[in-house]
Amino acid sequence: MNRVLVATGGGDCPGLNAVIRAIVKRAGQEKNWEVLGSIQAFDGILSEPTEVILLDEKKVSGIHVRGGTIIGTTNKGGPFAWPVKRADGTYEYADRSDEMIRKLGFMGVDAVINIGGDGSQKISQALYEKGLNIIGVPKTIDNDLQATDFTFGFQTAVQIATEAVDKLVTTAQSHNRVLILEVMGREAGWIALHAAVAGGAEVCLIPEIPYDINKVVERLEQRFNRGKGFAIIVIAEGAKPVGGDVSGQKSSEVGYENLRLIGAAARVMNEIKQTGFEADMRETVLGHLQRGGIPNAYDRILATEFGVKAFEMVLKKQYGYMVAYRHPDIVAVPLKEVIGIEKLVNPDSSLIKAARGIGISFGD
Amino acid sequence: MNRVLVATGGGDCPGLNAVIRAIVKRAGQEKNWEVLGSIQAFDGILSEPTEVILLDEKKVSGIHVRGGTIIGTTNKGGPFAWPVKRADGTYEYADRSDEMIRKLGFMGVDAVINIGGDGSQKISQALYEKGLNIIGVPKTIDNDLQATDFTFGFQTAVQIATEAVDKLVTTAQSHNRVLILEVMGREAGWIALHAAVAGGAEVCLIPEIPYDINKVVERLEQRFNRGKGFAIIVIAEGAKPVGGDVSGQKSSEVGYENLRLIGAAARVMNEIKQTGFEADMRETVLGHLQRGGIPNAYDRILATEFGVKAFEMVLKKQYGYMVAYRHPDIVAVPLKEVIGIEKLVNPDSSLIKAARGIGISFGD
Amino acid sequence: MNRVLVATGGGDCPGLNAVIRAIVKRAGQEKNWEVLGSIQAFDGILSEPTEVILLDEKKVSGIHVRGGTIIGTTNKGGPFAWPVKRADGTYEYADRSDEMIRKLGFMGVDAVINIGGDGSQKISQALYEKGLNIIGVPKTIDNDLQATDFTFGFQTAVQIATEAVDKLVTTAQSHNRVLILEVMGREAGWIALHAAVAGGAEVCLIPEIPYDINKVVERLEQRFNRGKGFAIIVIAEGAKPVGGDVSGQKSSEVGYENLRLIGAAARVMNEIKQTGFEADMRETVLGHLQRGGIPNAYDRILATEFGVKAFEMVLKKQYGYMVAYRHPDIVAVPLKEVIGIEKLVNPDSSLIKAARGIGISFGD
Amino acid sequence: MNRVLVATGGGDCPGLNAVIRAIVKRAGQEKNWEVLGSIQAFDGILSEPTEVILLDEKKVSGIHVRGGTIIGTTNKGGPFAWPVKRADGTYEYADRSDEMIRKLGFMGVDAVINIGGDGSQKISQALYEKGLNIIGVPKTIDNDLQATDFTFGFQTAVQIATEAVDKLVTTAQSHNRVLILEVMGREAGWIALHAAVAGGAEVCLIPEIPYDINKVVERLEQRFNRGKGFAIIVIAEGAKPVGGDVSGQKSSEVGYENLRLIGAAARVMNEIKQTGFEADMRETVLGHLQRGGIPNAYDRILATEFGVKAFEMVLKKQYGYMVAYRHPDIVAVPLKEVIGIEKLVNPDSSLIKAARGIGISFGD
Repeated sequence: MNRVLVATGGGDCPGLNAVIRAIVKRAGQEKNWEVLGSIQAFDGILSEPTEVILLDEKKVSGIHVRGGTIIGTTNKGGPFAWPVKRADGTYEYADRSDEMIRKLGFMGVDAVINIGGDGSQKISQALYEKGLNIIGVPKTIDNDLQATDFTFGFQTAVQIATEAVDKLVTTAQSHNRVLILEVMGREAGWIALHAAVAGGAEVCLIPEIPYDINKVVERLEQRFNRGKGFAIIVIAEGAKPVGGDVSGQKSSEVGYENLRLIGAAARVMNEIKQTGFEADMRETVLGHLQRGGIPNAYDRILATEFGVKAFEMVLKKQYGYMVAYRHPDIVAVPLKEVIGIEKLVNPDSSLIKAARGIGISFGD
Repeated sequence: MNRVLVATGGGDCPGLNAVIRAIVKRAGQEKNWEVLGSIQAFDGILSEPTEVILLDEKKVSGIHVRGGTIIGTTNKGGPFAWPVKRADGTYEYADRSDEMIRKLGFMGVDAVINIGGDGSQKISQALYEKGLNIIGVPKTIDNDLQATDFTFGFQTAVQIATEAVDKLVTTAQSHNRVLILEVMGREAGWIALHAAVAGGAEVCLIPEIPYDINKVVERLEQRFNRGKGFAIIVIAEGAKPVGGDVSGQKSSEVGYENLRLIGAAARVMNEIKQTGFEADMRETVLGHLQRGGIPNAYDRILATEFGVKAFEMVLKKQYGYMVAYRHPDIVAVPLKEVIGIEKLVNPDSSLIKAARGIGISFGD
Repeated sequence: MNRVLVATGGGDCPGLNAVIRAIVKRAGQEKNWEVLGSIQAFDGILSEPTEVILLDEKKVSGIHVRGGTIIGTTNKGGPFAWPVKRADGTYEYADRSDEMIRKLGFMGVDAVINIGGDGSQKISQALYEKGLNIIGVPKTIDNDLQATDFTFGFQTAVQIATEAVDKLVTTAQSHNRVLILEVMGREAGWIALHAAVAGGAEVCLIPEIPYDINKVVERLEQRFNRGKGFAIIVIAEGAKPVGGDVSGQKSSEVGYENLRLIGAAARVMNEIKQTGFEADMRETVLGHLQRGGIPNAYDRILATEFGVKAFEMVLKKQYGYMVAYRHPDIVAVPLKEVIGIEKLVNPDSSLIKAARGIGISFGD
Repeated sequence: MNRVLVATGGGDCPGLNAVIRAIVKRAGQEKNWEVLGSIQAFDGILSEPTEVILLDEKKVSGIHVRGGTIIGTTNKGGPFAWPVKRADGTYEYADRSDEMIRKLGFMGVDAVINIGGDGSQKISQALYEKGLNIIGVPKTIDNDLQATDFTFGFQTAVQIATEAVDKLVTTAQSHNRVLILEVMGREAGWIALHAAVAGGAEVCLIPEIPYDINKVVERLEQRFNRGKGFAIIVIAEGAKPVGGDVSGQKSSEVGYENLRLIGAAARVMNEIKQTGFEADMRETVLGHLQRGGIPNAYDRILATEFGVKAFEMVLKKQYGYMVAYRHPDIVAVPLKEVIGIEKLVNPDSSLIKAARGIGISFGD
């Protein structure tokens, strides 16, 4: 019996389960293949006792409609940086990659499919260089991987953010308010940009286009002067002002939780107030609601294509490669050529132009 | 031509437009009646120039599916406490109620339908005592009015909060996290209670049942010990600990915005941490997303019944009365008997018992 | 160990799983109780081999968000009329109730909770009269049981039907069409009535108010004359014309499937055409889409309350009773007093009045 | 003042309003441009009196979230085949294209943007050849235009069809039924294919792959043998058996409406029965529900990009061209090169392979 082991790493993302299901269903069409799942990324292999489960058709039945991942995930560590608590409560990090590869051998694992973001794929490549038969499946809810046109999860997140804008519009309109919605995107503003266009925001602030708060206020004033007493601002969590170091605003006297809370939306609200612009303003942080829930049709389809392709790459022994969507094809690309390359919003792209064309200001 | 004027006051609420539409459609069945709308509660009457619009069938066509209110609303003042800015920037409050009643006479308004919460209905009663022909329609997204079994907007808010729980469950499960969702409810925990039961939370914290953080942690530990690595806490913004004054935690050195941000969810997260309970925790504040969006079928129906009834009360000159839902009937109740009476969650109610029956802890 | 067995009978309905989950969770709070589930109503007990499963916390984890029933259901037979195929292919019906009660004894079942509609509860009562410790939980997506103010599933079906109306409005409007939506309701028009009010239909045809097709056309003409080039008709599958026997229209030359297909919507479309009214018309039959999917928050809550109450009735040995919702309480009512009593729409109810108040014609 | 006239033709499609809004918003950024809308495709120009309206920012405010088209549409005729009723009630078709171009001149229209499917774009090209300054925007909910990678409306239709599958799964599972869902697609099976993969159907029947009913039954039997007592079939309305002329089954004795009703789903259900396969089966026709409702984020964005691009093509006088999406760009393509070229599902495409990979049978 041949064995392929699947792991999901990094933040959870709608569509992970559809990838897992597709791998299991596709493997079921071959004789002599079974699929194992490592619980919480590679932790399941390294834990004592081992947490590795058999993934059969019954276990994956119907899971493609559910968010998250049935085999769990984690953001921490990985086999090359396994956190070990010291006596004083601090951590050091151990390289347990050799041990992990050895354990995979004991389990009779012939190949590994590692579903995860850029960090996870760097681990894939490092394990591949150590001789592991590994294949990557890209995952980024933020859409910030250069290697692939899109990944699963992004369209669902955009839909959730857009529905949030839709909801805010009615309340903004009723109260003549400026409502500021903060969405995911530390380095790349894809979700903010898409939700701003789809929802019909007036202002969109993204990391790729540093904003001038006076330009933002100019757009708001233009809006309010024309008799419209409300406006929507969609802001990526990583948006920043021109030349801007925003750290000064995260004053040291507030604790960790507050630092997180005083996010981009609240900061921009304060900056707007400081210009003297007078309007009733409110902010909403979408947070974890973006990751959860039912993947939409688009993401389920893409995830299914990725899963089937990944298993077929196993059959072809295309190790050291990652699945990618290069419209309209699902292809295999060498991991080493794609890891570490971020895909940012191009300020000259047709989507940015379309956004400006319907009057969205980026504060520039 | 007889005229009825409609106003919507207080926080916006899904279903307001369905009430307005029903009034206009029902009035259209009578000869010689037209409907006016005052923009932003009664401000439209008192503003210079007056902002009062004619509401005809065309203006209300299709609005029942839209959240918010097409005639706007406001939380501030009202005719008895009209804010007037002093030279030093502070405010004083003027009683302009007589002027407003006079203006309504000039406009030929025969009756007023005032759609709003308890504050608005107190204004209704005070205007009624001054001789105005006024009828109230109750509005409270929080479900905290004793006078009526339910009002429109509440079921939509519960649905939105429940879908948020559904979304958080998948991400909590994938990451073995405790996720804390803060929903509306300063005095009454109706939304939190309903969303906790419908979504399947482990803990629900509401103002009516002060919590002991150790009991909360006990429930979490019981959950984690049984091998379930995740939990959901739904908390009303007004939830408080036993004997609890929570103000001390809103430290004076953080500004106004932070005070708001360090809400119930973040506070409870800190309290849990201080007990030494170790788990990855995250909080999400649902905020304005609860008010917005498309009213669900239940709320559109109830709002429609309220609107039709309100206009029929005008025809019967049942002034000084408020529409109410006393299952299964839509009735008229005297305003003076119902204002100021809050409806809180009864800790002995069948819903609380059902909640405990499925293992929800209230931290008591 | 005490044992309670749960069965779900009749057409599936959103919320069934939430009832099952609540029973299991509540039973888990008592020492020495376990819950069994009979697969496909009572068939699981009578099948060879028996199909009865243990329902533990793990099996019911998260099922409250899923439509249908995890233990399956059936519309056929029951223990008093078990279909047995004769040699010639026809069926006779055997009474296997004694055998079933005996088998339940062998299994050590102390009590049975039977979740189902009026037909299922008649079986409950008959089994109770034979000495079985049985409790009923009412289920009717049509809302046609007199015993209870509402049951779970109905609000979800109304929401689905309302969203269908919302979708049809935009296409009707764009094409100046009359769109006719057929929804469930053979005897009672509850879903049609609620969806018509919530969605804003012009015409609503229900079994309780026989329609005159000329009155229907009158309403359409009034609508089209006022410059609105579209209209929505919501029709219950059991709607019928005044004095009307509709069977003649189901011509004998079309086979069984067609009989079903030429339902109420298509029939009314033809009747309208025969009056000479000229408009582009289309019909849509909502069908099985009404039963499926995720129960909304309202139904999950009601189902949870029913499940907890049912198990508590077991603890109190209130056999021969059915759970019921009598606003605002969840109560126990004697089965024999409530079975066979249908709840029809009262043409003088406040909801019918509200519907007429916003211009909905019932064709009368 | 320069004038651009917009028309929407053919079946309505989610996203049409977002295109209109984008054109109006983009035009508003130029001096001296105004946008007119012709009511119901080009009928508004040819009607007496003319039905052409001014489209300003107020008229398009918020319309991007609404399905359908605010300027109406029609499937009939067009300027080259204007239907004229003869005395005997039959129709002849007149060419009124010259008259229409003349009238556009009188109105001071400088350019026309024609949003519509392949039929509409053939009219665009014919008008262009007669000298009209015209630009096309492609619209096809079926995704069957070769010229463009995707158009707006398709993803929304797929999402609606997928949610229908999700709903049917729970009821199929509870009752051990085969449920057959018929979706749009006369020539191309795109919606069926996408919904089958996203929803997790067992069988998908599309026009591009003629089916053998015995192969379909084989897949069902395989499914039922493995203990799964339910299955979902998604079928495009244009699916047909191998070598198959299905017209014989639309027997002449049933009238027009029945012909439509005895669609692909009912036909396949009968064909399955005739093989002797025994299972409880039901069919559902999604029908007009696929066109309606709120466009999803993806479609709103694509529609917005199309609208902005179309107006910019007007500014550049790129007449005789059509907007197209060639991933990742929005481009202009010559109408004459793209009209009449259908895009069918390629049986060797990666999506078909992925579908087969998760066990979907196409009946071949």
